[in-house]
Order: sequence, then C-alpha cells, then structure tokens
Amino acid sequence: MTLQELQKKLRTEKLDGYLITRNNMFLEQDLRADENLILRLTGFSGSDGTLLLTRRKGFLFVDGRYELQAPQETNPDEVEVVCTKDISFYQWLSKNTKGFKRFRLGINPWTLAKRQKELLEINAIEVISAPEFLPPLLSSQPANVFELDIKYAGLSSKEKVKIIADKLNSLGADFTFFTLADSVSWLFNLRSDALADTPILRAFALVDNKARCWLFGNNLNTAKIKLEYPLLALSEIPTILKNFKKKKAVLDICSNSYALYELLQHNKVEIINETDLCQGLKAIKNPIELEGIRKAHLRDGIAVTKFLCWLDKNWKGKTELDIVERLHQFRAKEDLFFSESFTTISAAGKNGAIVHYHPTSKTNSPLTQDSLLLLDSGAQYLDGTTDVTRTIALGNPSKQMAEDYTLVLKSHIALSSATFPQATTGHELDAIARAPLWDSGQDYNHGTGHGVGCFLNVHEGPQRIARKNSNYPLHAQMITSIEPGIYKEGLYGIRIENLVEIVPTATAGYLKFANLTLVPIDKRLINKYLLSEDEINWLNDYHKTVEQALSPHLSPTEKLWLQEACSPL
Amino acid sequence: MTLQELQKKLRTEKLDGYLITRNNMFLEQDLRADENLILRLTGFSGSDGTLLLTRRKGFLFVDGRYELQAPQETNPDEVEVVCTKDISFYQWLSKNTKGFKRFRLGINPWTLAKRQKELLEINAIEVISAPEFLPPLLSSQPANVFELDIKYAGLSSKEKVKIIADKLNSLGADFTFFTLADSVSWLFNLRSDALADTPILRAFALVDNKARCWLFGNNLNTAKIKLEYPLLALSEIPTILKNFKKKKAVLDICSNSYALYELLQHNKVEIINETDLCQGLKAIKNPIELEGIRKAHLRDGIAVTKFLCWLDKNWKGKTELDIVERLHQFRAKEDLFFSESFTTISAAGKNGAIVHYHPTSKTNSPLTQDSLLLLDSGAQYLDGTTDVTRTIALGNPSKQMAEDYTLVLKSHIALSSATFPQATTGHELDAIARAPLWDSGQDYNHGTGHGVGCFLNVHEGPQRIARKNSNYPLHAQMITSIEPGIYKEGLYGIRIENLVEIVPTATAGYLKFANLTLVPIDKRLINKYLLSEDEINWLNDYHKTVEQALSPHLSPTEKLWLQEACSPL
Repeated sequence: MTLQELQKKLRTEKLDGYLITRNNMFLEQDLRADENLILRLTGFSGSDGTLLLTRRKGFLFVDGRYELQAPQETNPDEVEVVCTKDISFYQWLSKNTKGFKRFRLGINPWTLAKRQKELLEINAIEVISAPEFLPPLLSSQPANVFELDIKYAGLSSKEKVKIIADKLNSLGADFTFFTLADSVSWLFNLRSDALADTPILRAFALVDNKARCWLFGNNLNTAKIKLEYPLLALSEIPTILKNFKKKKAVLDICSNSYALYELLQHNKVEIINETDLCQGLKAIKNPIELEGIRKAHLRDGIAVTKFLCWLDKNWKGKTELDIVERLHQFRAKEDLFFSESFTTISAAGKNGAIVHYHPTSKTNSPLTQDSLLLLDSGAQYLDGTTDVTRTIALGNPSKQMAEDYTLVLKSHIALSSATFPQATTGHELDAIARAPLWDSGQDYNHGTGHGVGCFLNVHEGPQRIARKNSNYPLHAQMITSIEPGIYKEGLYGIRIENLVEIVPTATAGYLKFANLTLVPIDKRLINKYLLSEDEINWLNDYHKTVEQALSPHLSPTEKLWLQEACSPL
Repeated sequence: MTLQELQKKLRTEKLDGYLITRNNMFLEQDLRADENLILRLTGFSGSDGTLLLTRRKGFLFVDGRYELQAPQETNPDEVEVVCTKDISFYQWLSKNTKGFKRFRLGINPWTLAKRQKELLEINAIEVISAPEFLPPLLSSQPANVFELDIKYAGLSSKEKVKIIADKLNSLGADFTFFTLADSVSWLFNLRSDALADTPILRAFALVDNKARCWLFGNNLNTAKIKLEYPLLALSEIPTILKNFKKKKAVLDICSNSYALYELLQHNKVEIINETDLCQGLKAIKNPIELEGIRKAHLRDGIAVTKFLCWLDKNWKGKTELDIVERLHQFRAKEDLFFSESFTTISAAGKNGAIVHYHPTSKTNSPLTQDSLLLLDSGAQYLDGTTDVTRTIALGNPSKQMAEDYTLVLKSHIALSSATFPQATTGHELDAIARAPLWDSGQDYNHGTGHGVGCFLNVHEGPQRIARKNSNYPLHAQMITSIEPGIYKEGLYGIRIENLVEIVPTATAGYLKFANLTLVPIDKRLINKYLLSEDEINWLNDYHKTVEQALSPHLSPTEKLWLQEACSPL
C-alpha cells in the first residue's frame, strides 16, 4: 500500500482526507517494527507523529524533536512536514479546511481516543469512522507472556483488582475497560516480550465491580504462565460486552478508543467519564516497587559509571553506534537486566542538537576531538526502569560549550532542589527549570520531566512537567525525570537528566525531589564562576552520594576515576 | 426580600435551588452600593462570592481571601461558608447533588455567562432560566457619562471600531455584541461615575462589520457629551437584534450572558465563539496610554511617598481609617486624580492576615507599636490606573516579621527580574514567584498578578499570573501586578506589590518586566543576610530609580526622608 494508492482510494470512498496516527490499537504505546504505518508510508522513523493524508498531499505533523529529522527522511513532493511547535495540529486543520464546505475526514476508530475524535469535529470537519479503509497494522509475531514476581510488583493482581472493583462501586459503576497496555500489565502483574524496549503486555481488560476480569489479546503465548483470568481474542470483545447491556461503565475518553465507545453505545451502556483508574494508582509507586527502583538505579549507576570510565580512555576512533553497543554490554552484565528502556540516543557533536536523535547505520558518526557526546539511555530491570542523560566532554570543550552546559546544570539544580506544596501540577513547576535559561535568552523545545514506570513504560502519565497544561498533581512516591537542555543547531546538544522520586519534606503539606540516578555529572564542562554557592553545594553533595554508593562495586581503576569525577568543585 | 422568603418561593416554583452570583447584568464588574444582592441577603460584604440558595440553607462560596471574613459577617444558621480553595464550586455541586434524582437549579440568565451555565449542567443538575425569580438589582441612580480625551486614550473610538469591524470581516462574521463594561468603555472612549472606584460606562454595545454601532444602557445621563452612536434602553436589545436575523455573530461564551445567547438563538443567529474582541486589544496598551500610565505612576509615587514620610512621624494614635483618609488627601491633590481605584486596604497587625480586608467602622483598629501595617491602594487618574501595596514597620518589627518580609521580597524580585519567551502564559510564570516561599514551606492563597486597565478596571484580563490555568499569553505593552505575600493568621500580613509593564529584551523573542510603581520598599523590614547579591542589587537599583524620579517633586523634609528610605542596602 503506497501513499498514491491510498490517495486514489480517498477519491473512490469520497473522503477528503484520512488520519493516520502512529498508534495502532494500543494507543499511546510503542509499535513493533512491522507495525509502523507512518514509517512504511512516508519513511519517517520518529517515535511520534501524525499523518494527515489528503487527495493532494500528505501532511506529517511532528513536534520540536523531529523538526530537523522529519524533512530529512521524507520526500517533499509527497509529504509536507508541519512542526507542531509553530501551529497545533488542530489549529492547522481548522485553518486549512476553511475552503471546504464540509471536509470529510476518515479515521480508524481503534487508533483514536473518543476525545481526539471530538477535537477533530471542529468547524466544517465531518469525522467518518472508516476502520476498513486502513486497518491497524498488528504484528503476527507471537509475544511471550510472563509474570512479574510479587517480590518486584509489591502487590498481587488480586489485591489490585480489588482496589479497582472498590473504586467502581464507589463511583456507582458496574465495570470498566482498560485499553492502555501499561494499565493492563500493571494490574495483572503480567509482562511480555512484544516490544524491544518496553516489557508491556499488549492486551485489553474488562474488570467489573465484583472483581471479575476478562483479558483480550491476539498472538499471545501464555504457555509458561498460569492465567488467573480468561484471556480471549480481541474479536471476542463485542460478545463479552453483550453481558453488560444497559450497565454503567467507567470510560476514559482520553485514552479509550472511539471504537470501544461506539461498542458501549451500541450496548446502551451508561458512560461515566474518568481517567483510566489504573493510571493514578500505578504512578504512585508502592514501597516494594520503590525499593526495587532504588536498587535498579544503583546497578544502572554502576554500569554507566564503568562505561564512562572506559569511554574516557577509549573514545578515540569510536562511532556513535560503538558507544551504544559498549554501553549495552556494561548494562547487560548487571543482575535483573532485561533490555534497554528505549533506543539509546548516542549523539556526537552536531547530532546532539537533533533532540531524540538516535544513530542508525545511515547517520552513524565518529566521535571527534573537542566536541560533546550527548548520551541518553536507560534500562529495564525486573525491579525498575532507568533513564539517564549525560553530556560528556571529548577533549577540550569550548568556552561557549561550558557556558551552555553550566546553564543547563543551573536549570537542572533549580528544579531538582525545589520544594512545592501538595497538589502542585507539573505545569506550574516547569518554569522553575526554564527560568535560568530564559535569563540568557535560551530555551528547550521539549518537556522538562515525564513519569517513569516500574519495569514498564519509560514515559508514563498521568503527571508530567511541561509547558503544556497538566492538571494532574504531583504526589509523594511518584517518579519523574528532570531533563533540561540547550540545543545549538549544527553545533552541539546538551542535556542533563536524572530520575527523581517525590518525597515529603519536614514541613507538612510540602514535597520535594530525591535523586534516584547515580551517575557523575561531567565537571570538565562546568564554568564554576557561573554557579552560586548553593548550586556548588548541590553538585558536591550529589557527587558525594554517587561516590559512596558506587565505589564499593568498582575495580580499583574505576574507583580512582570516580574519585576524580566526584571530587568537590 | 429575605433568604426565608426566597426559600419559600423555591418550593412554590418547584426549584431545588437558585444561584445568586455577585454580578448583576454587567458580568465581572463591581456593583453600585444598592445593587449587592448577596450583601443584602446574607451580610457578606466581600468583593467576590457566589450564593447557592437551597430550600434548607444558603451556601456561600468564597475564595481564600474571604475564608476568615465571610463566617464573621454571616449567620451560621442561615448560611454555610464554603472556601473554594478546598473544593471548587462545581466539585461541591457535583458532590452535594448526588442524592437528587434531578436537581432543579434556577438561574438568572442575565447574570451568568453561557459557559458558566454549561459548567452547571453536570451530572443530575437541570438548569432553569428563571429571570423573574430574582431580577438583577440595577441602581436607579443615574450615572453621568463623559468622554475620555484622545490625548489620554491614544486612539479614537472610530479607529477602534474600525479595527473591530475588520476583525469581524476576517472572521466571516456580521456583528458582535459587547457586554463587558470595560470593553464598551474602552471601545467608545466613554466613562461614567456609576461606580465609586472604577470609571466604567455600564453599557452594552452591538458593532457590525460595516462599523455601525448601537449602545444600550439605562439611567445614563449623556447631557454633557456628543454621542457618535445611538444609545438605547436595555429593553431595546431584542428590537435591534431582529435586524440581524440569521446572520453570523461573534459571541464570547465566557463573558456574554446566557440571556444574550438565548436571544441570538431565538433570532437564528449563527454563533462563532471567540474571546470578546476588545479584551485582547485593550490589554496591549498603545504608546499614548503607556506614556500616560507612566506619568500617572510618577504622580501616584509622589503622593504615596509624601504620605509615607508623614506616616513615619504621625502614625501613633491613628487608626486604619485615619490612614485611608490621609492617603486619600495626598492623592487627591495630584493632577488628573479622579478617584481611588478600589477600596483601600489599610490593615493593622493581625488584620493584615485577612487577605483583601478593608477597614469599616465596625472593624477599624488602631495602629500599634512594633507591628506591621499592610497598605494596598491605588488611584484612577485620567491618564492611568495605579495599584500598589507596601507593608510598613511601625516601631521595631520582630525577627520573624523581617524574615517573612524578606522572603516576600525575594519572591517579588524573582518574578520581577525574570526573562521569558514570547507566548509564555502567566500560569507558567507563577511558580517563579512562589518558589522562594515554597522553599521555606510557605505560600499565599491568591494570584500573583492581574492585568490593569488604563483609567479602567484595576483588575482586568485576559492575562493573569496565577496557579489557575490561563491560556492567554503575556505580550509586550501589557500591564500586570506582581504581588506575592505571606499571611500569618492572628499575627500579621505581608504583601509587596508593584505594577510592571511588559517590554522586549535585547534578545529577539524574549520579554521582561519594567517597573511602573515608584514607591520605596520598607528597608527596615529586610534581613539583608537572606538576600543574594543580585537581589540586593535589584533593590538598590529600584530605590535609585525611585529617588531620582520623585525627589524633584518633594519638600526638603520629604527629600531627606526619601534619601534615607532609598539609601543602598
């Protein structure tokens, strides 16, 4: 199926356009390699994007991260790239469909949330549920399902289902339907090897107020586990839903697909709109999970620090992909290692300015003298998920590099050491990180922090720290990243990212961040005279903690290297 | 009409409740003294609040400012006070009407925006348009209308109407209807003496895409001006609207009343929902207005500084109301003075902890030794509106007072000296002001900044700096207040407020604040050791500007006093 063929089909089906999201049926999840429709149709390999195919042209909407990459990967005769930092998808749509009396826009209802469909229905746009026009691409490769041991999960599936059933009863609802794969994985303590970097089970689940459950998924190999609940094919969803005719259901119009909404409507189910009941519960880690996460970060810190020590002496003649491979080797030696938590971003020199760049055989670049290496990576351990970015000096960094690096560090420290009242949202905190950069007329074109799962998605909601509105309050026992950056197109990129846990302060009602990540921050890039005393103390304290935690696990050479890397500024 | 009588009427009209907003027909405006229904029914004198009358009880919803004051002024047998910092009005309503199969809620459609009506229609609430149940209380006192000279307004009414007509054409609309009194006042360069502290003309206006205009208002004395457009009685609105049957109108569902919406629907008018077209234009001051505003702040600074010099030697034996009176006398001597811009908050000692307290004959308290006076006041000059808060040491402040005052100053300086990119919203900047307080486990229960009109409302939108979401971006040539505080119940209140103008920085695409207010900040309350070098420099620079601007206009005694008040820290 090519863009041209689909454009012909638009004419025969009397559609003016068709919306192709990067999601397949499992909204907001990664794809398997053979499921990426946008990649297949346009060549764009980014991890986020929306393609609006019209009879005339394809319009590919990407965020600031892919502003440079998307035009490089696509054919300008076929695809026009629109960056959503300049105009939102909906604004663009509203502006560009004005000439139409009625713009007939086809969608696949399985790949779009109800809320997204509503947002599309603006001005003169008619949204047409056309699932057959372009079915979701679901991999036919079976995925192996396995159980996450209670010693890592902390709570049994039975206990979690009970919490959901109680919540349904308190809301006066009969049942709910989970379509977010990380919700289902968390709820049933199940994982799979479907995706390379995220151990989620890609399945749906119906849970009722009597704690009965039905799971739905295709191509799942469950030979090695004992399932506590029935697992049916996706095609069985309509059959099971017939048992819930005219009942009350909790539905999340922002995450449940429009197709599910249509099915519930068909069964005359009364809908109570609530955020997916697992998302809020999952985000607040239980004490066993927190213990695991801290242990995972210790092992990850050991692996990354060993790697950094190796890198210092061995970077010459290496390429970005060599770095990816070597870092993997260090991590893979650690206990409970499962996989990377996302494709490693190993970006040398100017590639660092392409936010969320990752090297491929086509782009692979050598590490060069007196440049920066931006390295953003993480791992899935059975007991926790990590995500850390360090920017590393190769040779002697320029004065400008050091100035920018120090600014990013100030930004990182500003947020990392902030205290804030309960019920504060990430949106409110975002400017605390940006203010030091804004002072010198700089900014970064991405969020400041994202939630992180526990042996689950490395990006998870419902909280986030970003310029975009986020009404979900930060809460003790949540995990978030803190990752400000500066990007100079054609020159270099800088980002410093730690994961932190949200903890109470001594003052009742107030919260702060506690560092989880244990990896030294490259001091050779710091212009000390730009830091305040408090900032210098923060860094020295951090390095002291890092050294004390990691040293016992390192070789004598590595120990010496770490001692120097962590010596007071 | 008493609460009891209305409650009886609820039964006969088969209503479960009736919503009484503090607005009359002129939404989001102050009231004339004889128009305050909530005051008349409950005794609550605050400037904001909503009364939900049910058959059983009245529920008075007030924000954090009135948490302490509202219960003092109302009868607990009749009225239960609900503070919206704990639970929003809509959340409360949703929670407390669950027992009802259908909660029949009466409203007066002239006193509620369409959007507010929509928000009410949640769960099992049926909203019933019942204008006769409790008509808006409109003063029968005539108001004198006068023109604002072009030398202050900067743009003629004709020029402004032309901008609106062009905007209507670009939106494909035939007409729009303005119901916000400050929009109408700004658009036609008209003002009136209807309200004590705000010179707005309380009128509605219809403007069409051919720049034709109709004004609507009752009890307006226009003897002294030449009206360029017809002024009709409010009752004529339906008649004029008949000429616009089946046309397209721009309506602001957040500010236009539901009654107007009903009228447009009745005339089959197609509605384009847009923010009131004057609000965004009015917020960005033109160069003539900015020049006037700066001049007004100079005169206001002279008056307040003369007062502060007097206060220093004369506060003993004085009461809060004496202060209000004396401050008025100083301001009234200045050129182009018209009125205060709001009721002066002169709060001695523990009264300062009641946010937006203002003294009455009942509460009037003496100024006492070793306490704080919180003084929040402003004036309307023909060329600009001012609003300034200073917290003043009477005698020797305690160490704790100085510590809190210094924290508030740090907070004020943090935001005042911030730089930020274009398109930043106030919501994003809010935490920059709060962060220094949060660090010591403190916060304030009100917004950080509000827009200010030009010889118009002292609080105006659409921009604001607050924890609440605000999607309206800050823009060069806007005015905002910066006013963090600390309030210790039963002890004292501290607030430091300046008005600032938003100006571009040397870096393209970035904005910063420039001070308008010229009044010394009480140094006797500062603990210098809690300030950074940058903060000390900010204060010294500010005081240098203040002294240079004011000195030429003061008596030798006052000059000496100011020299000391502005000497470097």
